[in-house]
Amino acid sequence: MLNTSVEVFAPATVANLGVGFDILGLALCEPGDIVRVERRSEPGAVIVHIDGDHGMLPYDPQKNTACVAANEALRLIGVTEGVEITLHKRLPLASGLGSSAASAVAAAVAVNALYGEPLSLAELMPACLAGEAAVSGWHADNVAPCLFGGILLISGASSEMINRLPVPPSLFLALVTPDVFIPTAMARSVLPQMVSLREMVSQTAAVARLVDAIHRGDVAAMGAAMESDGVIEPARSHLMPLLHEVRAAAHAVGAHGIVISGAGPTLCAVCSDEAQAQRTALAMSAVYDAAGMSNVSRVSRVAEQGARVLRVE
Amino acid sequence: MLNTSVEVFAPATVANLGVGFDILGLALCEPGDIVRVERRSEPGAVIVHIDGDHGMLPYDPQKNTACVAANEALRLIGVTEGVEITLHKRLPLASGLGSSAASAVAAAVAVNALYGEPLSLAELMPACLAGEAAVSGWHADNVAPCLFGGILLISGASSEMINRLPVPPSLFLALVTPDVFIPTAMARSVLPQMVSLREMVSQTAAVARLVDAIHRGDVAAMGAAMESDGVIEPARSHLMPLLHEVRAAAHAVGAHGIVISGAGPTLCAVCSDEAQAQRTALAMSAVYDAAGMSNVSRVSRVAEQGARVLRVE
Repeated sequence: MLNTSVEVFAPATVANLGVGFDILGLALCEPGDIVRVERRSEPGAVIVHIDGDHGMLPYDPQKNTACVAANEALRLIGVTEGVEITLHKRLPLASGLGSSAASAVAAAVAVNALYGEPLSLAELMPACLAGEAAVSGWHADNVAPCLFGGILLISGASSEMINRLPVPPSLFLALVTPDVFIPTAMARSVLPQMVSLREMVSQTAAVARLVDAIHRGDVAAMGAAMESDGVIEPARSHLMPLLHEVRAAAHAVGAHGIVISGAGPTLCAVCSDEAQAQRTALAMSAVYDAAGMSNVSRVSRVAEQGARVLRVE
Repeated sequence: MLNTSVEVFAPATVANLGVGFDILGLALCEPGDIVRVERRSEPGAVIVHIDGDHGMLPYDPQKNTACVAANEALRLIGVTEGVEITLHKRLPLASGLGSSAASAVAAAVAVNALYGEPLSLAELMPACLAGEAAVSGWHADNVAPCLFGGILLISGASSEMINRLPVPPSLFLALVTPDVFIPTAMARSVLPQMVSLREMVSQTAAVARLVDAIHRGDVAAMGAAMESDGVIEPARSHLMPLLHEVRAAAHAVGAHGIVISGAGPTLCAVCSDEAQAQRTALAMSAVYDAAGMSNVSRVSRVAEQGARVLRVE
């Protein structure tokens, strides 16, 4: 099973889900990054082409998430040859949609497929995390749902610390990404170092309601629980332009809740059918339009599968 | 439907379940308090007899939880007559088994039954909370499971803020109550006022795993999640004699996790069958026996029903 080239799609992901800061994440069906890897005889992974990034991403193998993940996957598989990587960047950078995780996961999954999938997804996770760590730290809340799909509870950076939650059948998400730049590091720096015991109790209650609602398939209760975040969103909301206006617009057309996706600026609304999600996406986009802010809105379901091989040659 | 007297059983409850501090509670099948109320023509509730309390409980209507709850129930029902209360105290006081809540709930439910149940359980809850508040503050983590039964997620002090979780079919609890006195106020005073964001994230992850495990009926995962408490137990463990030894003994015979019940000193072990729970109760008790501490051990399932009317005359 020695292939010449492989192309892989890895989806956008929504981390945190409001009250699930650093512990909950889900995979979207669309959009996603596409990575193509091609065998080369020299050792190591190199980037030969990137498009869709507006020239923003590095070609340096130590700094490019896809390259770091590919190199780690090569090492884990134990091959001395290398790969040439082509990255079709479809996800906006620093948008709260798990862009760096998607490139890392796509590259690692592609390298694994090139060699006939010697590693399981769980075994590939460290390679994906290494890629993610190259730009935004060693955490799995985007990497894990991107790799495995679904709605995941992430208690740590190894696959045994990940629980798959059921995806409510009626769940649709509406997303809007305004054209503002919010570095993840800044979105982290505004968070409180300490919270009161009372706040912790409220947050644990909200997370418990969210997991219960997910299990019951109750999207309205999901939305309400996700929005009950008294710690993270209050600290970050000033970085998210028009958050309150977008929330009001989303609720006005029936959305059940709206949260910051990852570290923002993408906002994610929880809806219980596709028409409602379409209305919500339009309503959220209209708020930014009215303010003269360019933006992109999307509707997606949760993808039960994460990264997938598109083509093997 | 005017009855002369009513007798009600209200069960012991286990609050917190480790990581679910102030938000999770469950009802046991046994033991429980029994309250008998009898109609009298003068207004207000009075205590005419208490047994089983070793003379510790007050007869003062403003200080006795059963009396306060009964008076509030009378007020909510809108009757001007009163009741005579007999309290058969079966629960140990200040033991972490929801003793005051059981007396309050039993009294309120009994008064309601005396008048043909004009109020729903949800409508009775404020009366029960008023009784509980007379001794230990206005919180529902014992009152709610005592009243409604089951495993409950309690986000606030009104019935709309309470979610019923499914009871795993294989769940058995083993409990041991050593003969030491730990006032709830002291057990609260040792808690930290602030926790780090990192600790909050760990605690939310553990609560999420617990709710997920409860929904999946996975008692082993429940026990592991319940024990993952990095905030409350570390602050209180020094008040609980031989906690670590009892935990080791429980695990050695197969228990999946052990937590402080309420504010202690009762310890509660999570088991996945009755024989395991019996072994665990004996093993936990043996630790205190060996140290010369008198103790009482019990095995119980979760009661799906809370307080229940035993007799109406």
